[in-house]
Amino acid sequence: MGAGNQQERLDPGWIVGFVDGEGCFHVAINRQPAMTLGWQVLPEFRVVQHRRDKRVLDSLQSYFGCGSVTVNNGDRMEFRVRGLESLTKIVGFFEQHPLRTRKQNDFRKFAQVIRLMREGDHLTLEGLENVARLSLEMNRQQNASASRILRDCTPNTAALR
Amino acid sequence: MGAGNQQERLDPGWIVGFVDGEGCFHVAINRQPAMTLGWQVLPEFRVVQHRRDKRVLDSLQSYFGCGSVTVNNGDRMEFRVRGLESLTKIVGFFEQHPLRTRKQNDFRKFAQVIRLMREGDHLTLEGLENVARLSLEMNRQQNASASRILRDCTPNTAALR
Repeated sequence: MGAGNQQERLDPGWIVGFVDGEGCFHVAINRQPAMTLGWQVLPEFRVVQHRRDKRVLDSLQSYFGCGSVTVNNGDRMEFRVRGLESLTKIVGFFEQHPLRTRKQNDFRKFAQVIRLMREGDHLTLEGLENVARLSLEMNRQQNASASRILRDCTPNTAALR
Repeated sequence: MGAGNQQERLDPGWIVGFVDGEGCFHVAINRQPAMTLGWQVLPEFRVVQHRRDKRVLDSLQSYFGCGSVTVNNGDRMEFRVRGLESLTKIVGFFEQHPLRTRKQNDFRKFAQVIRLMREGDHLTLEGLENVARLSLEMNRQQNASASRILRDCTPNTAALR
């Protein structure tokens, strides 16, 4: 048990507590002229740790059976999950085991984004607006693209095409 | 369940995960001329959160039945436990439910400090040296006092009296 055992399996309670502290649900919206609406929606779940705790990130990857463990920045590494199928697993887990901090609010919006994307809604302008709105509510400071979509979409939605 | 319920009881797994992310075991050693050896040893367990998650800190306080929730700095609040009796409870909990990150190493040293202090060892110069050594191994950058005790104690232990 504890920090010594390389093979330990995580328990859901621990994962929820750790993600309440260190996890991040994020939806990036990037300019992508090749795509129909000109924007790419990129949802991501991330847990960042100093590289000395890479083992914990590996355990998360092994628990969820998806995602990758890669360098985040300098000495920091991240467990990162992208892709709708994998993120659907992540969403299912945190629906079954709710977060206890206000991060739960971000998670709810993230889960809505994943649901919209699974239905292909983000490929319509109205759906993209919904995603942009949710994303903006989640990641207030970071999302200039989402602000721009909402500014440009309303009332003149044609401006984005 | 989740962020909506004010009365929820935490489960040990969640607490371990959250503390692996956000907790801090710290031993301060402060100059205190009024004390026999001239130094005061102040161990502390701390979890800091933005004030929007004060509720989670309150739940920790209620779970452990000790400590206090107070302002840390600006918008940040902390659940803080001091005092040997309360810290013995905290140590007992994390001995029963081990941390999974490298914070476990800090915790082991912290537990040793609490044990030494319960036996009054820190009131002897040799015990104080042990505490200073453990504290220095835990909190590398922060502990100028511990460095000074070790520098002054070895080989001339009389210098501190």
